[in-house]
Amino acid sequence: MSEPQSPEPALIIQGDSPTGTRDEDAADGIQHSHRMLSFSDALLSIIATVMILPVTHTEISPEQFDKSIQKLLATRIAVYLMTFLIVTVAWAAHTRLFQVVGKIDDTLALLNLACMMTITFLPFTFSLMVTFPEVPLGIFLFCMCVIAIGAVQSYLLMATVIFLPYVSKASSWCKGRLVGPQEPAAHSVEFFTFDLHEPLSKERVEAFSDGVYAIVATLLILDICEDNVPDSKDVKEKFHGSLVAALSEYGPHFLAYFGSFATVGLLWFAHHSLFLHIRKATQSMGLLNTLSLAFVGGLPLAYQQTSAFAQQPQQELESVRVSCAIIFFASIFQFAIWTTALLHEAETLQPSARFGGREHAFMFAKLALYPCVSLLAFASTCFLSRFSAAIFHLTQIAVPFAFLLLRLLVRLALAPLHALQGLSLPAHRSEGSEDDARAPLLPSAY
Amino acid sequence: MSEPQSPEPALIIQGDSPTGTRDEDAADGIQHSHRMLSFSDALLSIIATVMILPVTHTEISPEQFDKSIQKLLATRIAVYLMTFLIVTVAWAAHTRLFQVVGKIDDTLALLNLACMMTITFLPFTFSLMVTFPEVPLGIFLFCMCVIAIGAVQSYLLMATVIFLPYVSKASSWCKGRLVGPQEPAAHSVEFFTFDLHEPLSKERVEAFSDGVYAIVATLLILDICEDNVPDSKDVKEKFHGSLVAALSEYGPHFLAYFGSFATVGLLWFAHHSLFLHIRKATQSMGLLNTLSLAFVGGLPLAYQQTSAFAQQPQQELESVRVSCAIIFFASIFQFAIWTTALLHEAETLQPSARFGGREHAFMFAKLALYPCVSLLAFASTCFLSRFSAAIFHLTQIAVPFAFLLLRLLVRLALAPLHALQGLSLPAHRSEGSEDDARAPLLPSAY
Repeated sequence: MSEPQSPEPALIIQGDSPTGTRDEDAADGIQHSHRMLSFSDALLSIIATVMILPVTHTEISPEQFDKSIQKLLATRIAVYLMTFLIVTVAWAAHTRLFQVVGKIDDTLALLNLACMMTITFLPFTFSLMVTFPEVPLGIFLFCMCVIAIGAVQSYLLMATVIFLPYVSKASSWCKGRLVGPQEPAAHSVEFFTFDLHEPLSKERVEAFSDGVYAIVATLLILDICEDNVPDSKDVKEKFHGSLVAALSEYGPHFLAYFGSFATVGLLWFAHHSLFLHIRKATQSMGLLNTLSLAFVGGLPLAYQQTSAFAQQPQQELESVRVSCAIIFFASIFQFAIWTTALLHEAETLQPSARFGGREHAFMFAKLALYPCVSLLAFASTCFLSRFSAAIFHLTQIAVPFAFLLLRLLVRLALAPLHALQGLSLPAHRSEGSEDDARAPLLPSAY
Repeated sequence: MSEPQSPEPALIIQGDSPTGTRDEDAADGIQHSHRMLSFSDALLSIIATVMILPVTHTEISPEQFDKSIQKLLATRIAVYLMTFLIVTVAWAAHTRLFQVVGKIDDTLALLNLACMMTITFLPFTFSLMVTFPEVPLGIFLFCMCVIAIGAVQSYLLMATVIFLPYVSKASSWCKGRLVGPQEPAAHSVEFFTFDLHEPLSKERVEAFSDGVYAIVATLLILDICEDNVPDSKDVKEKFHGSLVAALSEYGPHFLAYFGSFATVGLLWFAHHSLFLHIRKATQSMGLLNTLSLAFVGGLPLAYQQTSAFAQQPQQELESVRVSCAIIFFASIFQFAIWTTALLHEAETLQPSARFGGREHAFMFAKLALYPCVSLLAFASTCFLSRFSAAIFHLTQIAVPFAFLLLRLLVRLALAPLHALQGLSLPAHRSEGSEDDARAPLLPSAY
């Protein structure tokens, strides 16, 4: 359907782009910033997310759940959320900066690393601020870091905008003397005007999100490896040397792990499907994405809660509710990205995902699946007294199959429609197809 | 110098490639696997590296450094190294697989997630194996995981190689009916033959390495945030409410943090510069890269050691030596990648980095800097009795300036050579330039 755009770009994309232009630039000491950007994205996303670890590492034995621990927990959650917000803002500034800065040399790469180092130090200053609210040192350090980041970034900007034209002019002059005359002006102008629009932004949103999902999935297994390998003394004394018996003690933990990993994986999958159909990411979509990611970052907390409180029935129900709420918010913000994109669908979405497009109904079902499941699970904890963490985790593990079924059911529902279309209008999409398809789709989610 | 390759690909790379072909494929339910691959890379690199955390979290107070703790530490280091190796092998298999599998649909994406989940479970089974060497359960679980990964991957391969031709044939038939006749055969054949060579491999090596460097840099700040925020009670009682005095207690930790971050950042920078000049990554270069990364993953241990043992002079020297050894091996393997690349320079390197190329001398100096610095620091610990962890960390912090100086010195050394070249042969490089440049470069590293 979108034939005119690029008939056979496979060779151009995969073969020439990473190697073709680079050599020329590397020879000038000026490099494409692509890999530096993805490294920065990985670093920033991990820093934003990893501050959930102090929250999950807070020791809570259910008996002595007193005020001081509650306060500590609240403090650490605040640190996590604020760190996430601050680092995301720093990332957004970084993105905007490198939409203007097209290429970098070694000095700028080193400055970027210094900038990253200062950003990694932000969470510490923020912890200080929260732990000692009455001492101004924390705020002072925090402000110093922010000023340093701002200084480095504005230096980068100035250095590039002011000096890069001279550098490129000088290098083109040298090249002109060595190789012979050519037209370098058109090339560099093209680059700059193109970078002032937002071609990288969607890629960088994807890279940042990937980093968050990847680190969240990994933090889960870290807890399993650190806490759930039984002690060899314990195995001998308590379980008479039976490792299987010792491991079955931890059964709920493993169930919780697989359930949580499935949830993180599928939220990533939904995000991936969504951004496959998005052409351009606007500011408001970026904000909604950040909110969604902040809740995704809270998933290790949900895992910790539901696996730690597997004994007390009352607290178990409460922790399942917390998990449902976290999953609900993470997925509903994804859904909100899509609805926001639909508002300006001509700019932001691919044709196939727009109203009446082939993939529209399927995307709707895909993104609505998790909000519905988590709402249902939440409702179940209120009405069914027998609902437990184990059932919750089994539901989480079952959701991937719902996704597979979804695909099948959408295909089945759309097949007669397509056949009808094929008979009436060969190369045209009917405007009402998504409304017809939606009704049979949603019940299939469960 | 490499003008004929691609005169103005800027627009094609940044504009069309991510959006142009995707829509067409997304409409078929078949997607480019690019983002899924980078997510897998991030996940696998983090899993490979994060197992260093149990090693660094082993509590060692210098007094009770007895056998049992030594054994625990050795066990955990073994788990880390083996996990790194196994996950890297799994990653290599994944890379090979997706060099054949060009595109994926939803089912394959979900299967890939299942595969990732099984891989994340490997470190746990390995911990079990090491903690209970006499019980076969650990080995059994480990083998089950490996079989499951193999089954999923071979299913992916079969599904793609056997069924994808039918899928693409069917979709091209549908498209032919809807849009009109065209030549789809050339397109799909082009895609497959191109994927059988290794166009993605270098990109994926970069992505995997980026993930490792990013997570290592982040693990450092995590320790700072968890351990080095002083307790408010302590501050009141011990330091009479002075936060600055309390923080100055942790002074060596902060110095160690900045030093370690600078080292990780610059090792990434060297890696980045190196791969900018590499055209194609061979198997042996990939192996050397893995070895280098395994030592990079050990850097948090070096940080932990040098910051924890800042009191005892004998153990301090020993821990500085361990750090030097880790940095030396991490950087010497990077250097080895370059020498291996030079053996087949026509295939593997860009023209400017080959013998006699413009960037050859500079790359040599860049990659030789860290091995030399770490060797010198190691030697200093043997000969100078006053060498301390603080001096070591200050050296680490000073290295970035050496890098900046390096650039300047190389330029100064090459300027007269270029002028001579410009006078004698306008468009030609002299064969001896790198030998002349090398001599003044190496001493500048210190």
